[in-house]
Amino acid sequence: MGILVVGSVALDSIKTAAGSQDDVLGGSATYFSVSASYFAPVSVIAVVGEDFPEEHVSFLSKKGIDTSGLQRQKGNTFRWKGEYSADMNTATTLETQLNVFADFSPQMMDAHRNHESLFLGNIDPDLQRVVLQQMNKPRVIACDTMNYWINHKREALLKTLALIDILVINDAETRQLAEEINLLKAARRILSWGPKTLVVKRGEYGALMVSPKAMFGVPAFPLEEVVDPTGAGDSFAGGFMGFLAASGASDDAALRKAVVCGSVMASFNVSEFGPRRLADLTYPEIKARFQEFHRLTAFEHI
Amino acid sequence: MGILVVGSVALDSIKTAAGSQDDVLGGSATYFSVSASYFAPVSVIAVVGEDFPEEHVSFLSKKGIDTSGLQRQKGNTFRWKGEYSADMNTATTLETQLNVFADFSPQMMDAHRNHESLFLGNIDPDLQRVVLQQMNKPRVIACDTMNYWINHKREALLKTLALIDILVINDAETRQLAEEINLLKAARRILSWGPKTLVVKRGEYGALMVSPKAMFGVPAFPLEEVVDPTGAGDSFAGGFMGFLAASGASDDAALRKAVVCGSVMASFNVSEFGPRRLADLTYPEIKARFQEFHRLTAFEHI
Repeated sequence: MGILVVGSVALDSIKTAAGSQDDVLGGSATYFSVSASYFAPVSVIAVVGEDFPEEHVSFLSKKGIDTSGLQRQKGNTFRWKGEYSADMNTATTLETQLNVFADFSPQMMDAHRNHESLFLGNIDPDLQRVVLQQMNKPRVIACDTMNYWINHKREALLKTLALIDILVINDAETRQLAEEINLLKAARRILSWGPKTLVVKRGEYGALMVSPKAMFGVPAFPLEEVVDPTGAGDSFAGGFMGFLAASGASDDAALRKAVVCGSVMASFNVSEFGPRRLADLTYPEIKARFQEFHRLTAFEHI
Repeated sequence: MGILVVGSVALDSIKTAAGSQDDVLGGSATYFSVSASYFAPVSVIAVVGEDFPEEHVSFLSKKGIDTSGLQRQKGNTFRWKGEYSADMNTATTLETQLNVFADFSPQMMDAHRNHESLFLGNIDPDLQRVVLQQMNKPRVIACDTMNYWINHKREALLKTLALIDILVINDAETRQLAEEINLLKAARRILSWGPKTLVVKRGEYGALMVSPKAMFGVPAFPLEEVVDPTGAGDSFAGGFMGFLAASGASDDAALRKAVVCGSVMASFNVSEFGPRRLADLTYPEIKARFQEFHRLTAFEHI
């Protein structure tokens, strides 16, 4: 039931309406793995530089995350500096230093090849395929991407999409990838390229899952306090994949519960800077928030 | 179980990515009453001019709507001309001719005073109160408003809000009215001013209902074809109030089902220009779409 995730580990400098923090532990693989760790064992494949604090590695290990695939290379860690709009819906990148992430070459241990679930975080789609092709037939393969790869490596991305089960992206990426403004038409077009399921993350508006036979929509959990939206999408993906891995299923009922688990984890993540709130959760808290999602969305028949 | 609605009846000229149409029957009271007519008897209080085609009055009557409160005044009917962005999310007003609507003075028949439900459509909040104060204690009073009244008649609007049960507005109006960017905080602030329930319409993202004790969220129905968003909010309000009137209840369970009925009616309305799709619905179609909302949003416990 193990999950292998490949992605970024970063040091972020973040400014939001709630304040600002420098050198916060970040990156897609970080948020994903901490979130997923509440559901199933996780192994991370990523790269950090010489400047990466050892305490962050200890933190991941203490969450039970296998960091044997976390390479330390000469140079500095990937750094992102960004600022959010007052409504927290838009991030403006102030600075990106790829550093050691620029030449990232994912290194797999033999033990990684047999993980049942694979999450290809937002990296070069050619590298995503390098990882995928070294795996020993995982039961579930999911993938994220971003506007940069959609624009600059479209053909490579389409090759990756042909090999995966589930694509987890946001609504702007969905429209951009499909070159179609209607979200449902865009989703159906993307499904024709390979993935059996598309999960569209819509930030404060929730998530929509589309497969050839079913649609599932859930609102985001309304919160009075949003401190830092960084990593919400990766926390979502972590909860989503974590639940699927733990359940051993990937039918429609399991996928729906997985989308809600993703929404639960994203709702916790945004309430503090970085992955701090994710870090100190308990499974009973997660389950209680899941039940709150039930109360939020339940209605009887007419 | 009758509903009284006061609002506008208009002739709209609409341009969307799907085409353009001139002199389409429109106005908040029109969309509201056609939508609500599938659930409960509706009476309309509104004004039209000498140019208003008699066939539109016949159409409303044929839907079983009581038009005895529809005044015909010297001059022309209220006209709105607008264009929607390619994603259908933003309307740009190209021209507004208030015409007879500028001096609208709602005229009530005695029979109107005993309606059980009252919907105060988007008109001057002072006029909303004139109507409300002539009523004989309706069981449910709901109200809509818009940015113009929030900006220009804030004190009058707050007086109206103190007298109503349910406010039905969109998310931008919620933030603007509360002067608060966080939607949930904004909702709670507005509830402190009188309404027991706030229903926030979020267009393609669905609806969120907030009361002191409960929250309910539902996504919009994903549609491959959106032809004309005009009147979606009023169709929503019509389905919402229609269900409440028909059920005779206004507890949390009834309010939740009412929000879904509103979402059902809005989802039908946007699929053709003007109220054309609303006009030819059947109750079995409405019930089937309600069930599709169930399938869209259902998930099991973990």
